Amino acid sequence: MKLSTIAEKTFAVIERGEADLELEGAAGLDLAESGQITFLANPKYTPQIKDTKASAIFLDEKELIERVDIAVLRAKDPYLAYTRALRLFHPEPEITRFIHPKAIVDETARVAKNVEIGAGAFIGKNCVIKSDVKIFANATIYDNVKIGKNSTIHSGAAIRENCEIGANCIVHNNCVIGSDGFGYAKDEEKRWLKIPQTGKVVIEDDVEIGAGTCIDCASVGETRIKRGSKIDNLVQIGHSCTIEEDALICAQTGLAGSSVIGKRVVLAGQVGIAGHLRVGDDAVITAKSATSHDVENGKIISGIPAFDNRDWLRSIAAFRRLGEMTRTIRELKKK
Amino acid sequence: MKLSTIAEKTFAVIERGEADLELEGAAGLDLAESGQITFLANPKYTPQIKDTKASAIFLDEKELIERVDIAVLRAKDPYLAYTRALRLFHPEPEITRFIHPKAIVDETARVAKNVEIGAGAFIGKNCVIKSDVKIFANATIYDNVKIGKNSTIHSGAAIRENCEIGANCIVHNNCVIGSDGFGYAKDEEKRWLKIPQTGKVVIEDDVEIGAGTCIDCASVGETRIKRGSKIDNLVQIGHSCTIEEDALICAQTGLAGSSVIGKRVVLAGQVGIAGHLRVGDDAVITAKSATSHDVENGKIISGIPAFDNRDWLRSIAAFRRLGEMTRTIRELKKK
Amino acid sequence: MKLSTIAEKTFAVIERGEADLELEGAAGLDLAESGQITFLANPKYTPQIKDTKASAIFLDEKELIERVDIAVLRAKDPYLAYTRALRLFHPEPEITRFIHPKAIVDETARVAKNVEIGAGAFIGKNCVIKSDVKIFANATIYDNVKIGKNSTIHSGAAIRENCEIGANCIVHNNCVIGSDGFGYAKDEEKRWLKIPQTGKVVIEDDVEIGAGTCIDCASVGETRIKRGSKIDNLVQIGHSCTIEEDALICAQTGLAGSSVIGKRVVLAGQVGIAGHLRVGDDAVITAKSATSHDVENGKIISGIPAFDNRDWLRSIAAFRRLGEMTRTIRELKKK
Repeated sequence: MKLSTIAEKTFAVIERGEADLELEGAAGLDLAESGQITFLANPKYTPQIKDTKASAIFLDEKELIERVDIAVLRAKDPYLAYTRALRLFHPEPEITRFIHPKAIVDETARVAKNVEIGAGAFIGKNCVIKSDVKIFANATIYDNVKIGKNSTIHSGAAIRENCEIGANCIVHNNCVIGSDGFGYAKDEEKRWLKIPQTGKVVIEDDVEIGAGTCIDCASVGETRIKRGSKIDNLVQIGHSCTIEEDALICAQTGLAGSSVIGKRVVLAGQVGIAGHLRVGDDAVITAKSATSHDVENGKIISGIPAFDNRDWLRSIAAFRRLGEMTRTIRELKKK
Repeated sequence: MKLSTIAEKTFAVIERGEADLELEGAAGLDLAESGQITFLANPKYTPQIKDTKASAIFLDEKELIERVDIAVLRAKDPYLAYTRALRLFHPEPEITRFIHPKAIVDETARVAKNVEIGAGAFIGKNCVIKSDVKIFANATIYDNVKIGKNSTIHSGAAIRENCEIGANCIVHNNCVIGSDGFGYAKDEEKRWLKIPQTGKVVIEDDVEIGAGTCIDCASVGETRIKRGSKIDNLVQIGHSCTIEEDALICAQTGLAGSSVIGKRVVLAGQVGIAGHLRVGDDAVITAKSATSHDVENGKIISGIPAFDNRDWLRSIAAFRRLGEMTRTIRELKKK
Repeated sequence: MKLSTIAEKTFAVIERGEADLELEGAAGLDLAESGQITFLANPKYTPQIKDTKASAIFLDEKELIERVDIAVLRAKDPYLAYTRALRLFHPEPEITRFIHPKAIVDETARVAKNVEIGAGAFIGKNCVIKSDVKIFANATIYDNVKIGKNSTIHSGAAIRENCEIGANCIVHNNCVIGSDGFGYAKDEEKRWLKIPQTGKVVIEDDVEIGAGTCIDCASVGETRIKRGSKIDNLVQIGHSCTIEEDALICAQTGLAGSSVIGKRVVLAGQVGIAGHLRVGDDAVITAKSATSHDVENGKIISGIPAFDNRDWLRSIAAFRRLGEMTRTIRELKKK
C-alpha cells in the first residue's frame, strides 16, 4: 500500500517521504520491521524512535524527530491513525458461505443464505439469523434468538432463549448471554426460593463481548447493552442492568443487578458495581475499585468503596505510612 | 389466574379486591402492566406505588396505601409472596422426552427413559442419568458421572469424571464441575510438580450453579456443595472445599482450597476466601472483602483483610480524610 | 507397592518399618486409611499424627514422632516426597488410540496416529496435532493451530487461529487461548474503533492452564507463556503479556496488556496487574493485591496499590483502629 493511500485513509499529512513508498504492514515501535509503519502516542516511548526499524511513522503535530531516514505522517491522533492503518492492512476476512453438514439447525429457524455455520454449532427453534453472520463450531444458540447482520459468534458461546444480538457484534468464545439472573427469596425455613428469570438480554449493534463473559437475563423485562459498548473477558453483568452507548468495561469487572452504566463510562479491570445504582456518563472507575453509590457524570473515582481519585491518591500515600503515624500519635499523646 | 387463587397459594390475605379478579402475570412496580400483580418490599420504592399500572399488589402488614383502584394482598413477606406468584405464572417447562440423534451417549451409560438430551451433548462411560434430567446441546459429561432426578445441565457445561450431581439442580452454561485442583509441590530445581487430583465433586440436591463457575475436584477425597446452596456466575471453588446447606455465593467470588463455608452464609460479589479456614454459619462477608482467618457464626465482616463491618465503616470514613489527617499530625508535632 | 520402592522413588530413607510393607495409596493425615502413606509438612497439623489411620508417614529430618505403630520415611521435603508417592499410585492414564466418528477433523490437518480425539471435537485447517495428544469432546481447535506431544485439551476449550501449544501441556475445560486482545482507539466521535488483533499466543512445554481461563492474542506479535508455568482457573491474561518460566498464577487473577511476569513469580488469588510493567523474578504478590508499577526481583508485596508486605501488615493493623485514631487526633488538636 502506498504511503499516499495510507495518509489519505488515515486523515494524515505526509511531512516527509515519497508518496509512492510501498508499505506492507503496521506495528508498534519495538516490533515494526522495515517496510512497515509505526506510531508514537506516548512520549514515554520517544527514545524507541532512534532504534525502530519502521520505514514510516505517525506523529502528532508537535513531536520533533531527528531521524531523516523514515517517512513522517502527521496526524491529530497518531494512535487512531495507526489503528486505521492496521485495519487497512488487516481487513475482516470475507465470509465463506456454508453450513457445515454437522451443524444442527432447527427446521423452524430462519437463516439467511450468506452465512457461515460451523460443525457442531446448534441453532434452536424459531431463531432468526441474518446475512453475513458467522457462527463457529460448537456454539449453542437456544430457541427464539435473533442475530443481526454481520455478527460473529465464536465457539462455545451460549445465547440463551429469546435473546437478541444486533448487527456487527462479536461474541467471543465461551461467552454466555442470557443465563438466569441470581435471584432468590428466603422462605419461612430460611431456604432460597428461586425467582423465575423470564426476561431476556438485548445486545444492540457494534458491541463486542469478551471470552467467558456472562450477561444475565432479567427476571422480568430486559438486560440491555447499548450500541458501541465494548466488554472484555470474564466480566459479569447482572440481571436488568443497562450499559449505555460506547461504554468500555475491562476484564473481570462485575455488576450486580439493575444498575445503569452511562455513556462512554470506563470501568477498569476487576471493578465492582453494586446493584440499583447509576454511574454517570463519562465517569471513570479505576482498576480494582468498587462503588455502592451513584457516580456523577465525568467523575474519576477509586478505592473500596470508591471516592474522588485525587483524594484517594492522597489517602493511599498516607496509608503506606500508617504504622509510623500510629507511633507519632502515641508519642504526641504521652506529651 | 384468580386473585383468590394467588392469595391462597402465596399465603396472603385479600384486603381489597374481587376474589374473581383475573391476573395474568407478575412484575416489579415499574414494569408491571394492567392485569398484573406487583409488590413493595423496600420503602425506598413506596413513591412508585402512585404510578404503577399493576392491578394488584402484595404489601406487608403495616404499609399504608392511598390508591383505591388496586387490589391489595397482605403478606408477611411481600417479596416471598411475589416470588411465589411469579412461579405460579411461570411453571417450569415440561420435559420433552427425546435424545437428539446427534447426541453421543456411550452404550455403557444408564439413562432413564424420560430425559431430554440435546444435539452434540456427550455422555461418557458408565454414567447414570436419572429421570426428568435435561442436558442441553454441547454439554460434556465425562465418564462415571451421576446426575440426579430433575436436574438441568446447560450447554457448554463440563462435568468431569466421577462427579455427582444431586436432584433438582441447575448447572448453567459453561460451568465446569470437577476440573483439577491447583496443587503442585516445588521440586529440587524449583519447578512445579503436579499433585494428582484424584478426588471428585459432589453436588447435593437443590443446588444452582451459575454460568462459567468452576468447582475443582479434591486431590484425595471430595469437594462438596450441600443441599440448597446457590452459586452465582464466574465463581471459583478450590479443591476440597465444603459449602454447607443454603449458602449463597455471589458472582466472581473465589475460594482457595479446603475451606468450609457454613450454613446460610452469604458471600457477596468478588469476595476472596483463603485456604483451610472456616466461615461460621449465618456469617456475611460483604462485597470485595477477603479473609484469611476463620469467621465466627453470624458475624458481618468487610475489608481486605476483613474485620467487623461496623468498625470497618468507621475506618473507611477516616480513610477518606487520611491526607488531611497526615497534615494535622505534622502540625501537632511541630507544636 | 512396597515401602522400599516408595522410599527409593521419593528419595526418602526408611527410619522405621519393614521394607516389604505393602502400601496401596497416599492421602493427607485426616483422610488416609490403613494401608496408605501420609505426610506432615506443616507443624500446625502435628496433633493429627496421633489420630491418623495411615500405615506410613513422610516426615522431615527433625520432626519427632511418638507413635511406634506407623512406618516412618524421612525426606528432605515431605510434601514433595508425598507428591511423588501420590504420582506413583496415580500414573497418567494410557492414551486410547481413537478418533471418534463424530469428531470433525479437517482434511488438511496433520494428525499423528497415536491420538485420542473425542466426539464433537473440531480441528480446523492446517492444524498440526502431535503424538499422544488427547482432545476431549466438544473442544474447538481453530485453523493453523499446533499442539505438541502428549498435551491434553479438555472439553469446551477453544484454541484460536494460529496459536501454539507445547508438549506435556494441560488445557482445562472451557479455557480460551488466543481470543482477541481488548484494544480500541477512540475516534473523533468518541466511539471505539477496534484495533485488529492479528498476533497469536504461544504456550511452551509443561504448562497447565485452568478451567475458564482466557489468554488473549497480541495485536501484533505474540503473548507467550513460558515453560513450566502453571495458571489456575478463571485467570485473565491480556494481549502481549509474557509469563516467564515456572511462574504460578492463582485463580481469578488478571493481567492487563504487555506486562512481563518473571521466573517463579507467585501471583496469589484475585491479584491485578496493570499494563506495560515488569514483575521481577521470584517476586510474590499476595491475594487481592494490585500493582501498577514494576516490582523488584524477590519482593513480597501486598495491598491496593501494593507495597512492601511487612509495611502493609503494619498499615492494615493501624487501619482497623483508624476510627479511634481520628478521635485521638481531634482531642489532641483541642488541647
